[in-house]
Amino acid sequence: MENFEHRLARIAATTEQALRDLLPPVAGNPIAAPMHHAALNGGKRLRAYLAIESAALFGLDAVNTAAAIEAMHAYSLVHDDLPCMDDDDLRRGKPTVHVKWDEATAVLAGDALQTLAFEILADPLTSANASVRIKLVADLARASGANGMVLGQVQDIAAETATTPFTLDQITELQANKTGALIEWSACSGATLAEEDAGPLATYSAALGRAFQIQDDVLDVVGDAELAGKRLQKDAEAGKATFVSILGLEAAQQQASSLIEQACDALSLYGSRADPLRQVAQFVINRNL
Amino acid sequence: MENFEHRLARIAATTEQALRDLLPPVAGNPIAAPMHHAALNGGKRLRAYLAIESAALFGLDAVNTAAAIEAMHAYSLVHDDLPCMDDDDLRRGKPTVHVKWDEATAVLAGDALQTLAFEILADPLTSANASVRIKLVADLARASGANGMVLGQVQDIAAETATTPFTLDQITELQANKTGALIEWSACSGATLAEEDAGPLATYSAALGRAFQIQDDVLDVVGDAELAGKRLQKDAEAGKATFVSILGLEAAQQQASSLIEQACDALSLYGSRADPLRQVAQFVINRNL
Repeated sequence: MENFEHRLARIAATTEQALRDLLPPVAGNPIAAPMHHAALNGGKRLRAYLAIESAALFGLDAVNTAAAIEAMHAYSLVHDDLPCMDDDDLRRGKPTVHVKWDEATAVLAGDALQTLAFEILADPLTSANASVRIKLVADLARASGANGMVLGQVQDIAAETATTPFTLDQITELQANKTGALIEWSACSGATLAEEDAGPLATYSAALGRAFQIQDDVLDVVGDAELAGKRLQKDAEAGKATFVSILGLEAAQQQASSLIEQACDALSLYGSRADPLRQVAQFVINRNL
Repeated sequence: MENFEHRLARIAATTEQALRDLLPPVAGNPIAAPMHHAALNGGKRLRAYLAIESAALFGLDAVNTAAAIEAMHAYSLVHDDLPCMDDDDLRRGKPTVHVKWDEATAVLAGDALQTLAFEILADPLTSANASVRIKLVADLARASGANGMVLGQVQDIAAETATTPFTLDQITELQANKTGALIEWSACSGATLAEEDAGPLATYSAALGRAFQIQDDVLDVVGDAELAGKRLQKDAEAGKATFVSILGLEAAQQQASSLIEQACDALSLYGSRADPLRQVAQFVINRNL
């Protein structure tokens, strides 16, 4: 079986190439260059991996769903980095869009990346079946809008200015909205493409998403800023409650491990075909950036 | 036949009610109130009127497509009003979202309104036919993204800082992207819902859109700021080329009238059933706000 690091890198390269082809060409369109800068960022492409490997369980290709979810993720990062939000100058070691261009360009490039995500899903190349495509659109809209990712970002901003630190339940809910919803969409998209039951993948990705968020908090404390290409320990500086500040470092790491075990257990139905999804689950808690 | 003003007001009220039901409830969701503020703004609902009356040509209801296009339009206004873009404090006489709340809230409420537009179109209540729904999504994504409305806004910002004023062709292109694309989507959506040829409606709405933009420039010069509920003569102050600055006031008004004639001619196929679309075309050049 293909080595995990190789598989992850291969899927990232495939997704990056697909995105490059789906983005508007830079020549002749002034918003295209900032969109390329934001979307072709050399990320790990975890969401693309989940989309492609969940579809592979059912013998399907899924490069379009992978590109769509990465366009959606890229939009959220461009807007989160804005001065009025997290005010981040660096993303993966490169200047953020509002730093390299300006704030108006960052708002508009983010807007157009969100639109592109839906445009990609609506394309017949995503699936020949219109019912499948519209279900992907409906599910992604639910996961990313006012009851999903956007709500999570609103709750995250509220957590920063809250007079009493958020409770574990509140942090769990905000993270489930902010990050979990798109991770779940990605992992379930393969079953949607195949018109199969997404139940086991929903269980897998709910646990995976929580473990991912805990590990993010862990890395914010113990991680290497240079390696991550972004500022770390922002939460501690802001006095913001995190999984680590509430549970402690060791218990947080234990909980992440236990969630990864649950995630992998949910895949038993698929036997060894689900090994790529088990490997990425282990990677989520062993990664150092 | 129902009086035009009454019809316009009735459709605006129907659309506002539908939007209210489709928006997340304000209780328990902190991003819902700014979304309501932005979307339930007492606008003329021209796009909703086009969606509903184009569907009525084919005997269909279209309250969902009307609500979707107004959610998309509302998102674009919230982002256009931001300090980094047009920096407007007032919209229809009310404080804009970033004034009433803050910039982060305005970015996020706009983001969620865009998502909501696609979520509404993906709902089976929009059409029982998945192929119809996915075509509405695909067409709206094309009209509103990096090759449509967002591009128009980018071009509009470029026009403000251009060292040589834009030419008539450049203004026509930027306005077609910024405003025309959503107007065309609205007027063609009825044919899409009915799975009928959208050709006549595309011709109608391309001419209507151009007339609308010319009249906007006319009103920016001769309009009443208090009536409009927004700042006027911004373009003249900014030394920005407009249809009026290039053509002169009288020729601009003549061109708008001639375009409305063309728009109405394109509807001959539909006979008197298209009278509501002819009436709104006359309204576009006779309106005073």
